[in-house]
Amino acid sequence: MWQLYHFPLCPFSRKVQLALSEKKVPFALRLAYPWEDDEDFHRRNPAGKTPVLYQEERRLTLADSQAICEYFEETESKSPLLPGSAQARAEIRRLVALFDDALYNGVTAPLLHEKMKKRLFLRQSPDSRVLRQATRVLHDHLDYIDFLVDHNRWLGGAQLSLADFAAAAQLSVIDYLDCLEWSDHSSARNWYRVMKSRPSFAPLLTQKMEGLPPPRHYADVNA
Amino acid sequence: MWQLYHFPLCPFSRKVQLALSEKKVPFALRLAYPWEDDEDFHRRNPAGKTPVLYQEERRLTLADSQAICEYFEETESKSPLLPGSAQARAEIRRLVALFDDALYNGVTAPLLHEKMKKRLFLRQSPDSRVLRQATRVLHDHLDYIDFLVDHNRWLGGAQLSLADFAAAAQLSVIDYLDCLEWSDHSSARNWYRVMKSRPSFAPLLTQKMEGLPPPRHYADVNA
Repeated sequence: MWQLYHFPLCPFSRKVQLALSEKKVPFALRLAYPWEDDEDFHRRNPAGKTPVLYQEERRLTLADSQAICEYFEETESKSPLLPGSAQARAEIRRLVALFDDALYNGVTAPLLHEKMKKRLFLRQSPDSRVLRQATRVLHDHLDYIDFLVDHNRWLGGAQLSLADFAAAAQLSVIDYLDCLEWSDHSSARNWYRVMKSRPSFAPLLTQKMEGLPPPRHYADVNA
Repeated sequence: MWQLYHFPLCPFSRKVQLALSEKKVPFALRLAYPWEDDEDFHRRNPAGKTPVLYQEERRLTLADSQAICEYFEETESKSPLLPGSAQARAEIRRLVALFDDALYNGVTAPLLHEKMKKRLFLRQSPDSRVLRQATRVLHDHLDYIDFLVDHNRWLGGAQLSLADFAAAAQLSVIDYLDCLEWSDHSSARNWYRVMKSRPSFAPLLTQKMEGLPPPRHYADVNA
């Protein structure tokens, strides 16, 4: 059985969990905080980042969320994550990179620093300027998600794809940190509600970061 | 014909140039500085980043260096960038992500800020603490490259792959900025010399950033 090194608020581990669940690949979760000294984890991924997926029996270790998703896309034909032509797949990969990079670095990462690291480890208050800036960048991304779902049914085109899971994984962490403000992004909100009610999403809604409870609406699929 | 929006010191545009040249895909270069107001460029990639590749005739635009490389890996069988089994391909993709992310963010990006942006746009001196820190991280990466080429012939395994091009693209920018110190990394140095002497590399050695000439050794394939 596959073992997935993750921590509850790692958006990239969430992306991999969604992809594996959609493809019906069974896996067990193993906790690894990248900032702690876990020899087995750091040996398996010199980059020192979650997620890392491994199977002891087959002496097989996979690291990097996109490399993991591409691996299962090549080996499991069920529920394609990159459906369509080469051009359609390039568009999905462009969006995945946009959410993994710009949405993560502009929003999720600073919010994790301000609202998770500062609270749990540094015992500091969040910097309100950083929170405001992250919120501004978030609204640009929600605008873009509105635009995408208004033009297609899903983010990457006519079919559900890894673009949807990559974006939803980031938003789920932002929502856990109580920073997801929908204001007038009704298309994005409707799309996210559909994502949140998928069976693959359910486990994410129960995973909790110790010492940092989510807001009450977080696990409510109708919120 | 494909048009590639790039700027001379963009490591990701360099990675795409190498991949296209290896696959013998013809393309023309078009200059775009992401920090400038270029409407066509920003329309084609809302992420506002180079590289962007497009073909007007086919109304086809591709953005994000990895999405572009994967597209040509799917459509051009010549000179595979991700050779081998699904497992081998996952290992290559893990390394590409490591160089695109950790080597870029820990070394190339801070050096571009200190030695390109500050000199050309901000008219400031580089911060020596930032340069020292980037050099330390660079040595960790060169250690890892030593380790990889000592265990395999190429970075990603027994065959040349996108892992080699991704790493070499970053190092070529670091070298242009005169920050590539080999000290005792002889395996990495030999590997890079081989990369640098490939025909696909030659155009990179002639591309210059206006106002910022490279050091004399930069274009010397024996240096």
